Amino acid sequence: MEFRGSHILSVDQFDRGDVERVFEVARKMLPFTQRKRVTRILEGAVLGNIFFEPSTRTRISFGSAFNLLGGNVRDTTSEESLSLAKGENLHDTASVLSGYCDVLVMRHSEAGAVAEFSSQSRVPVINGGDGANEHPSQALLDLFTLDQEMRDKSKRVDGMRIAIVGDLRFGRAVRSLCGLLSVFDSLDVRLASPAQLTLPETLKEKLISQGHTVHEFDSLEPALASCDVVYMTRIQTERFATAKEADLYRGRLRLNRKIYEAWCDPETIIMHPLPRDSRRKARELDEDLNPNPNLAIFRQTDNGLAVRMALFALVLDVADKFEENAKAVPWYRA
Amino acid sequence: MEFRGSHILSVDQFDRGDVERVFEVARKMLPFTQRKRVTRILEGAVLGNIFFEPSTRTRISFGSAFNLLGGNVRDTTSEESLSLAKGENLHDTASVLSGYCDVLVMRHSEAGAVAEFSSQSRVPVINGGDGANEHPSQALLDLFTLDQEMRDKSKRVDGMRIAIVGDLRFGRAVRSLCGLLSVFDSLDVRLASPAQLTLPETLKEKLISQGHTVHEFDSLEPALASCDVVYMTRIQTERFATAKEADLYRGRLRLNRKIYEAWCDPETIIMHPLPRDSRRKARELDEDLNPNPNLAIFRQTDNGLAVRMALFALVLDVADKFEENAKAVPWYRA
Amino acid sequence: MEFRGSHILSVDQFDRGDVERVFEVARKMLPFTQRKRVTRILEGAVLGNIFFEPSTRTRISFGSAFNLLGGNVRDTTSEESLSLAKGENLHDTASVLSGYCDVLVMRHSEAGAVAEFSSQSRVPVINGGDGANEHPSQALLDLFTLDQEMRDKSKRVDGMRIAIVGDLRFGRAVRSLCGLLSVFDSLDVRLASPAQLTLPETLKEKLISQGHTVHEFDSLEPALASCDVVYMTRIQTERFATAKEADLYRGRLRLNRKIYEAWCDPETIIMHPLPRDSRRKARELDEDLNPNPNLAIFRQTDNGLAVRMALFALVLDVADKFEENAKAVPWYRA
Repeated sequence: MEFRGSHILSVDQFDRGDVERVFEVARKMLPFTQRKRVTRILEGAVLGNIFFEPSTRTRISFGSAFNLLGGNVRDTTSEESLSLAKGENLHDTASVLSGYCDVLVMRHSEAGAVAEFSSQSRVPVINGGDGANEHPSQALLDLFTLDQEMRDKSKRVDGMRIAIVGDLRFGRAVRSLCGLLSVFDSLDVRLASPAQLTLPETLKEKLISQGHTVHEFDSLEPALASCDVVYMTRIQTERFATAKEADLYRGRLRLNRKIYEAWCDPETIIMHPLPRDSRRKARELDEDLNPNPNLAIFRQTDNGLAVRMALFALVLDVADKFEENAKAVPWYRA
Repeated sequence: MEFRGSHILSVDQFDRGDVERVFEVARKMLPFTQRKRVTRILEGAVLGNIFFEPSTRTRISFGSAFNLLGGNVRDTTSEESLSLAKGENLHDTASVLSGYCDVLVMRHSEAGAVAEFSSQSRVPVINGGDGANEHPSQALLDLFTLDQEMRDKSKRVDGMRIAIVGDLRFGRAVRSLCGLLSVFDSLDVRLASPAQLTLPETLKEKLISQGHTVHEFDSLEPALASCDVVYMTRIQTERFATAKEADLYRGRLRLNRKIYEAWCDPETIIMHPLPRDSRRKARELDEDLNPNPNLAIFRQTDNGLAVRMALFALVLDVADKFEENAKAVPWYRA
Repeated sequence: MEFRGSHILSVDQFDRGDVERVFEVARKMLPFTQRKRVTRILEGAVLGNIFFEPSTRTRISFGSAFNLLGGNVRDTTSEESLSLAKGENLHDTASVLSGYCDVLVMRHSEAGAVAEFSSQSRVPVINGGDGANEHPSQALLDLFTLDQEMRDKSKRVDGMRIAIVGDLRFGRAVRSLCGLLSVFDSLDVRLASPAQLTLPETLKEKLISQGHTVHEFDSLEPALASCDVVYMTRIQTERFATAKEADLYRGRLRLNRKIYEAWCDPETIIMHPLPRDSRRKARELDEDLNPNPNLAIFRQTDNGLAVRMALFALVLDVADKFEENAKAVPWYRA
């Protein structure tokens, strides 16, 4: 894949070499996300951070990543998508906004909308999540974290056993993750979900056709044995017809300290795309695991900055320049 | 007009020389809006981008323009105008915000509100649209585009024939455009609108008193003959008492490829202040004209950046300094 | 108090020396807030400006202050606090956002929420107002202004007589102000409020135990005699069960020119945390006092920039560095 000038719309664009390239650049970003060094390579560039579906977390992550490269950010949050309310189509919106910005991030509630938007954009568009479809930067940060965590334990992603648990039907983070797992070798994938929320067949078949092993479970415990990592997800209430329907599934598959200690290896890495649902009825990933050093959920969000910086640097072709003229940070950092 | 330190509230402030001065500075901004060069002249300056009526497009255009001059932007969108809800008057708001910023852009739903606000501001205020009243930066970017397009065809704005079509009663873009057209010479202005949505008499009289010719039509086709430019507008649904009333007029005057080819000159420039209404019932400017090289609508929005940069540079008195120390852009640009 | 790396949650953290230190740094910020000089000390730093309860004024003040130090700002306004709606608790939100930013400002509608949030933040958190509880930066800017105003009149804060008027029960600005007044010496504090809206007993007792004199009044005029300063506040409608209940108190204690001239000294300083309620039923501080040179309300908001810059500089440990490499402002300033 030629990153320079490209849209980043789907994990299907990435082969193994592309993923390694993103990880390589993301690792170089770590001194910057950890505020040891400052770069100004994108000074004067403008990111249009267009969130037609709200997301504080992802919007701020992309925005901060761009700021850390020296660029400016113009934000839009959902409440305000009024030109569309005045009857403007996405193509016109793209033609206009791509004149104002050097790169665009878009989140939209409809699957495929970001790709449609990108077709008329004159600058690179990064998919920040489109409905139940894709969330490629989330999958990249998940796998970058996995890669880092496995290295720390002197292990490799290739050949690992991973349990993926929860709402595998509507979670776009899961869909993108499963798509991207395909590029690795010989994975043992254990899918645990309520029977009504299993992973779509096409994704399962893709994993199998790439030589991975896939097992499905409708409860949590049997999926956990000898896993290198367990990836928990929340029930996507907002994708169900009614909150009541979602309630049928919330709280069914739960990981907590007791279950972890009974069923997982002591080194099993715990991940979650966040937000986790900590209300009593849900609690798919219990806070009693917070002290566990294998809980990687906040290392995931930290790594999100590095991965998003890497994507910006790659599509804007500054991945080999941003370290020049970098300076030490003069302010306090814990 | 002395630009330095001035508020930009109405097109009535501009004489021919002022318009030429804005165009001259805007032309110098083009290498910056096209991302060939970067300037940091306003590094450390803060724009308060105060939108009490939401507008993604205009808000981002002003914000990006300020970023391209090196400045920072603090945004407010309508949903949040709560100090006013707590009973604060616009004068207090202006006194406070003008202490936080170096320049302010304000959009407001009420005609005259921006002028009232500016009376207590200690820094320059630019009107980003006040109700059905004025939208001076839109008129300036429309005429800057017209000037550029006519030059490309070795023609001049003076003496041109222009058709202005649609909702001429409620559209503030149209009102500001007609006001600004007055400063040019010997125009042949053809106004086409439903009989209930004609241009206000005062604007018509102003054009005539300045020596221009004005003809009115209640359908589109007869207005188009031998025009250098046709300027389409959308029915301003949000200014009618009910959406139903607006529906009476939507879809009445429509430009599409068939009508263009039958009635326009092959060089007729097509403009629209955007957003255009692409829903089936409206379609005042059909997408089948998108491939037409005379369709200038996205050159208008691109030029909006340059014109808004010029306005900031003029009121903050850096129009003769921003090219000093400008640097080449180090990142990818298509 | 060690400022470096600290959260700023409550005025109770500040002793007299801390307050003097903030004022000392804030005074050094004045050439920057007045746009005589530009510093870039925080270039590359990111402020997360997290407003779960909306406030245009305070949000922009913090954001501009950070921009004036050279940093970037990522904003969140209330409408979008959706990860919390998805069941995320404040601790997770803090863990995530503190990875994206170098410092966080948070406003929240619930008392204590900011402190709870800060307990999981890995970067300094500044309380931008939590329910009816605290608003420490407001108290600091109020007292910095008082200090500046008293110096201008060759007087001192210690030993002054101050009337505090209005809704003393629900106003967090008042609560924080009274808390911070305690660190000064021998104040004569005159509290005027409707009987149902008196200052909480604990705050009164704290003032008395620190050696200050406290008198309470249920009308305005008798509280004003020989005051050095009168601090007016608005009825906090949003903290009452119903707007109707708030209406019982609005308009009861009003300062206007006639009352000022009859009851105040000609040098009495007039303050208000703003917004003031200028609707006919309220008008606790009448606009007919706008020409009075002792009306300090817009000097308060101007000073807010300097005080917030000082807080950022202190917690990020650049208070002794930001003047290095500062440059003259190249753009127009009135």
